[in-house]
Amino acid sequence: MKIALDAMGGDFAPEAAIVGARQALDLLPDIELILVGNKDKIHDLLKENNLDKNPRVEVVHAEHTVEMSDASTSAIRGKKNSSITVAATLVSEGRAEAVVSAGHTGAAVAATKVRMRLLPGVDRPAIATIMPSQSGPFVMLDAGANLESDAENLVQFAVMGEVFAKIALGIQNPRIGVISVGEEDVKGNDLTKRVFKILSSMPINFIGNVEGKVLFQKYADVVVCDGFVGNVVLKSVESMAKATMFWIKEAFSRNPFRMTGALLAKEAFKELKEIGDYEEYGGAPLLGVNGLCIIGHGSSSPKAFKNAIRVASQFIKLRLNERLSERLEETGALISKLKKNSGANNGD
Amino acid sequence: MKIALDAMGGDFAPEAAIVGARQALDLLPDIELILVGNKDKIHDLLKENNLDKNPRVEVVHAEHTVEMSDASTSAIRGKKNSSITVAATLVSEGRAEAVVSAGHTGAAVAATKVRMRLLPGVDRPAIATIMPSQSGPFVMLDAGANLESDAENLVQFAVMGEVFAKIALGIQNPRIGVISVGEEDVKGNDLTKRVFKILSSMPINFIGNVEGKVLFQKYADVVVCDGFVGNVVLKSVESMAKATMFWIKEAFSRNPFRMTGALLAKEAFKELKEIGDYEEYGGAPLLGVNGLCIIGHGSSSPKAFKNAIRVASQFIKLRLNERLSERLEETGALISKLKKNSGANNGD
Repeated sequence: MKIALDAMGGDFAPEAAIVGARQALDLLPDIELILVGNKDKIHDLLKENNLDKNPRVEVVHAEHTVEMSDASTSAIRGKKNSSITVAATLVSEGRAEAVVSAGHTGAAVAATKVRMRLLPGVDRPAIATIMPSQSGPFVMLDAGANLESDAENLVQFAVMGEVFAKIALGIQNPRIGVISVGEEDVKGNDLTKRVFKILSSMPINFIGNVEGKVLFQKYADVVVCDGFVGNVVLKSVESMAKATMFWIKEAFSRNPFRMTGALLAKEAFKELKEIGDYEEYGGAPLLGVNGLCIIGHGSSSPKAFKNAIRVASQFIKLRLNERLSERLEETGALISKLKKNSGANNGD
Repeated sequence: MKIALDAMGGDFAPEAAIVGARQALDLLPDIELILVGNKDKIHDLLKENNLDKNPRVEVVHAEHTVEMSDASTSAIRGKKNSSITVAATLVSEGRAEAVVSAGHTGAAVAATKVRMRLLPGVDRPAIATIMPSQSGPFVMLDAGANLESDAENLVQFAVMGEVFAKIALGIQNPRIGVISVGEEDVKGNDLTKRVFKILSSMPINFIGNVEGKVLFQKYADVVVCDGFVGNVVLKSVESMAKATMFWIKEAFSRNPFRMTGALLAKEAFKELKEIGDYEEYGGAPLLGVNGLCIIGHGSSSPKAFKNAIRVASQFIKLRLNERLSERLEETGALISKLKKNSGANNGD
């Protein structure tokens, strides 16, 4: 099982990427890694990590790195030899089964779309992120692969999300919802109303609109939204969690009683911190590209890299992409038909 | 100072509204209340609360109540005699200085827009909500008055948000940002890019895009977004806070050590719960209508009603609407000019 790792992508790359790679190799005996990026830098780090003679590690040189300030299109225009583009090419050529990157998300989407192409029946890929809730994890997509999406895109996200929830969360018949501002079908914006109409006629377990106010009480197993909304929700909830830990720390250090209380309950704080910890999830798959792509958090630590690689190896084993293809084929003709009836535009 | 209270609006109305009214009358000696709604029901509750002979309380009958499942437009079409519409009319006729409602938000927006009209220079009103952050409160608007907005709307929201942050939070020169998915001006969707361009040329303290990931670390004092995004962010953060309290409770009751810890730090939990408690804020103003309108939370308790009335009385004293008008007049011509240059559409 060969996985291509964009060794240059991420705030703490390439160091964190290589240390994470070493941890993943220790943990997962059946994987091999292709490290893509500046070969000199990578070789130095491989030596430091005692990986320079490891037969399970290969290095493929890439001239450029897409920086966070670059446009997404740079991966397929100005910086065609960037680490993410070269890594995506390895998958398209069958030399690797998955690509893992914690770099520029837009660039990873652009590079994989162009190099690996899309699965039949998919017009746009979507990032599927697993989020914690009071009653267990759920899937939200799109978490930011696209900034504008039409109704048909969101319906395709729903189909892919259903497959993903089955595989990743083991839910037999996932409840699917669309994020909106009211429960009833008449509530929402033009986009959500169209999606509601199409999904109501699909052979999936569609439960209607899901309001923000019930999101983390888990009303649905899969929620779809456009990538702008998904990204803002994902990131602001992360920001809120960070603020909450700050407030907890502050509140518990205000006097000796509370400090003693905090000491006694030290392990409880640890558990709280672990809920929704992105380092544990490692990365979110970009669903809909023809080949597996795992997008890591921009500030991935070695542990996050290790887990992103672990997640990639799991989804290879679970045949995620084959199962997506099967389901997309089953539903594809129906989506087109329903789309015509709903008057959904192409909105591009 | 006369305030019209939609006594029928809210999950726990009219009971919670009348109890909240009594608490507000006790707290604020300079207010008088006009309770709008079903006069029989209100009279019964006034008796129960010893308010039936209070000279500071007046009752105005309204035949209908807009239900949560009604369309927003029902307030101005089918149910013209609904409590929210009658309350808004009292303000438009000068019989009250503000309206407070915890009922159907869309109906409150529709009723006040039609009855009270908009301030010159405003095409759409916006709900301005105060949110907590690690470094103090900030203002987010629009939190759900509109579901689709164009660039000019968001620019007007920024101007109104600036005035509101000065008055409500006492911030001299509020930093204004637009919610987006990346820091740079090139990142975001069509709407945010246009807003970025216009706001960059305005005589306000515009600091650029604000990503979800820094929202609750407070990078800006005022953030603007369309009402769909604002509503989903506001409500999902509320949902996350609820889930967090659930997780905290669970984590702290797992063994006797932790339970003792929790007991010692009881007051810390109380403090945590109070952060961002909507009952304390009471309600959010609908900025841009010609007259003060405070929108309460749908599940307003008596305390939330009391605080919504308190907030209304404060903003009357602080001349919120006059100050909005002044600033809108100062910036109005400029917005139109910049809008033309940016190629922003009307997007309606």
